[in-house]
Amino acid sequence: MKPNFTLRLRVFNLNCWGIPYLSKHRADRVKRLGDFLNLESFDLALLEEVWSEQDFQYLRQKLLPTYPAAHYFRSGIIGSGLCVFSKHPIQEFTQHVFTLNGYPYMIHHCDWFCGKAVGLLVLHLSGLVLNAYVTHLHAEYNRQKDIYLAHRVAQAWELAQFIHHTSKKADVVLLCGDLNLHPKDLGCRLLKEWTGLHDAYLETRDFKGSEEGCTMVPKNCYVKPQDLGPFPLGIRIDYVLYKAVSGLYISCKTLKTTTGHDPYSGPPFSDHEALMATLCVRHSPPQHNPSPTHGPAESSPLTSVLREAWGEVDQGMAQAHWWATVAGYAIGLGLLLLALLCALAAGGWIREAALLLWTPSVGLVLGAGAFHLFHVQEAKSLCKTRTELQHVLGRAREAQDLGPESQPALLLGRQEGERVEEQ
Amino acid sequence: MKPNFTLRLRVFNLNCWGIPYLSKHRADRVKRLGDFLNLESFDLALLEEVWSEQDFQYLRQKLLPTYPAAHYFRSGIIGSGLCVFSKHPIQEFTQHVFTLNGYPYMIHHCDWFCGKAVGLLVLHLSGLVLNAYVTHLHAEYNRQKDIYLAHRVAQAWELAQFIHHTSKKADVVLLCGDLNLHPKDLGCRLLKEWTGLHDAYLETRDFKGSEEGCTMVPKNCYVKPQDLGPFPLGIRIDYVLYKAVSGLYISCKTLKTTTGHDPYSGPPFSDHEALMATLCVRHSPPQHNPSPTHGPAESSPLTSVLREAWGEVDQGMAQAHWWATVAGYAIGLGLLLLALLCALAAGGWIREAALLLWTPSVGLVLGAGAFHLFHVQEAKSLCKTRTELQHVLGRAREAQDLGPESQPALLLGRQEGERVEEQ
Repeated sequence: MKPNFTLRLRVFNLNCWGIPYLSKHRADRVKRLGDFLNLESFDLALLEEVWSEQDFQYLRQKLLPTYPAAHYFRSGIIGSGLCVFSKHPIQEFTQHVFTLNGYPYMIHHCDWFCGKAVGLLVLHLSGLVLNAYVTHLHAEYNRQKDIYLAHRVAQAWELAQFIHHTSKKADVVLLCGDLNLHPKDLGCRLLKEWTGLHDAYLETRDFKGSEEGCTMVPKNCYVKPQDLGPFPLGIRIDYVLYKAVSGLYISCKTLKTTTGHDPYSGPPFSDHEALMATLCVRHSPPQHNPSPTHGPAESSPLTSVLREAWGEVDQGMAQAHWWATVAGYAIGLGLLLLALLCALAAGGWIREAALLLWTPSVGLVLGAGAFHLFHVQEAKSLCKTRTELQHVLGRAREAQDLGPESQPALLLGRQEGERVEEQ
Repeated sequence: MKPNFTLRLRVFNLNCWGIPYLSKHRADRVKRLGDFLNLESFDLALLEEVWSEQDFQYLRQKLLPTYPAAHYFRSGIIGSGLCVFSKHPIQEFTQHVFTLNGYPYMIHHCDWFCGKAVGLLVLHLSGLVLNAYVTHLHAEYNRQKDIYLAHRVAQAWELAQFIHHTSKKADVVLLCGDLNLHPKDLGCRLLKEWTGLHDAYLETRDFKGSEEGCTMVPKNCYVKPQDLGPFPLGIRIDYVLYKAVSGLYISCKTLKTTTGHDPYSGPPFSDHEALMATLCVRHSPPQHNPSPTHGPAESSPLTSVLREAWGEVDQGMAQAHWWATVAGYAIGLGLLLLALLCALAAGGWIREAALLLWTPSVGLVLGAGAFHLFHVQEAKSLCKTRTELQHVLGRAREAQDLGPESQPALLLGRQEGERVEEQ
């Protein structure tokens, strides 16, 4: 049995923009961030883009007295950049690396090399089990022509599925991170609809910070106008999301963001704004929810967002198949060229030119081969996502057909007793 | 509340050896397997090495009347080879692709291209939640000098962690698959100790089949002596593992294996033997376990296996770092060679030889670069595994220090009420 009490949880989230050699004033910003975290003594500080493990180790040493527990989530070649500092002991941790994360040949975008992931921490606070997740999804470089859209939607789905399947026994679920998604973007809606997580910014009655809760604002001296694209007033892509289950009620008492400078009006900690939330968890008597989120109508938010995601992933799959085919033709072309060059060199004609062209031809065959294999794998991963979406969509439709009463039994997991209490 | 009853669960598992163009008599074997599965009407049939999606689609069509639900787990370039056929509706499914899975340059071993994974199905049977997992770990090609040992241990740990974190609300947990691990191998002990899963072969009182439960036997006409290495009498690497939680008792009533031919004494279904288990789940009054598995002694099975796994993964990490360094030197060497060749070609000396050597030099630099990045990523993934093992080891030791009474609270998740009932 859980004690009858109120749990207050102070949470800090920041994308730290900690790229070695590239991010400006990194050492100074990390130092000041450490000082601030020590002073504020949050329950949990969840950080993204701590790309340098040295920065994490520096913070770990500095924060040790206030945050005795810490973890750095390692993955990929560069790393996930995710880490966490906790005032309370961490009972368990694990991570899931996203299957799709951009393209290795888009070297200038670098995301593929990071191994972007979601990290999970299990904490026990006053008899409650808290599952805290931290994540960072693929960046958006061009909103008008976003070649990574299908990957980001697939990541949002994998994130939602990971939370869905690992949090079934948690009392409180918390997700912080840089989603690289605007609040109304498909991935964000999919995540919220499938997990039932609530957005602290939309839920709180006490918000202080940047206009419309933006977490990248033009006032921040590290933000260039092109970072904001068609949103010169700022974008909201960093989130604190939460829910409570099993007869508990969770609310966001206060939410603050920094506003282009650090909390003491000094230079900013990062090119993103920090989020500081005070969450309150208390017992709540079970009560029937008069307005179920998933109504019986065909246009319920869950089915419509699932359908939309299905369409996006399907389109991505077609694209992946197309690239795999193009690469197949390029392999054939490269092999033809190689045979021709061999014949020319053997025949003694333009021998030097033939030898000179040998390298690019071999390069073409090998490069196109790798490109082909990569896109075959991409198509397979997108197909897996599409199949999962289709299955959930099918079940959501069945639930709708049977009416709202049957939904909890059919859409198990998300609905098991949690929708009633989490309002 | 769950009804007071006995649930009988008939499960089939087989590594199908379904490699297109390479596996002998594939089409005939798949056809006969389909006939057998239809005739026997198991609750669940979990298959591995169904590498061809056409084979899956053929079986899906053939089995549709008996097994209305089916799923194929897609991943990697070739695929995970995992699929499942179920008599009961599948409520949910998801999968986790292993972070480490061999080396891309070991093309003849092919495992890296498969994207080996664990698949999860959630089923509701008579009011109980069944989490069924199917998996296939990296093959063992040379037991004396196993270069994949650290990867297989890391896969066993990831598998155990995936089950641990996704099954917290399940009533019954079932894991079937080809683990490529002998019963006393480190990975197998780690998996069983951390998840609390029981081995059907060791638990059942009614076993019929090959000697010592072997799943690769010399009598099988598709098994070559070299497949069995130093075990000419056979090896046991395919498993049915299970546990029950929340006041339930699970036992294996019967376990059968095929014995080198199909159940009608015809040619075998595969080079592996099939496993057929009848599991029985019923209510059990909670009772105190007089002999806790994790005793307070320093040498408890969990701590000792965690320590052993830590050592193995640590050694793998050192090896990965070593290869990354060697590749670093090779990159340097390749760049030097390229500079020299450029100088020679520009100076007009042995121009043709210089041009001829251009391709291998560029190849060396690019190849060594890719090799370096791969091993950096390998080291990071092994480091992540080592950190998780270290954390659990620390907590297991704390639990030991505090005595057996405190273990359930400290080693949460695995211990939450499950050890008492699952005996």
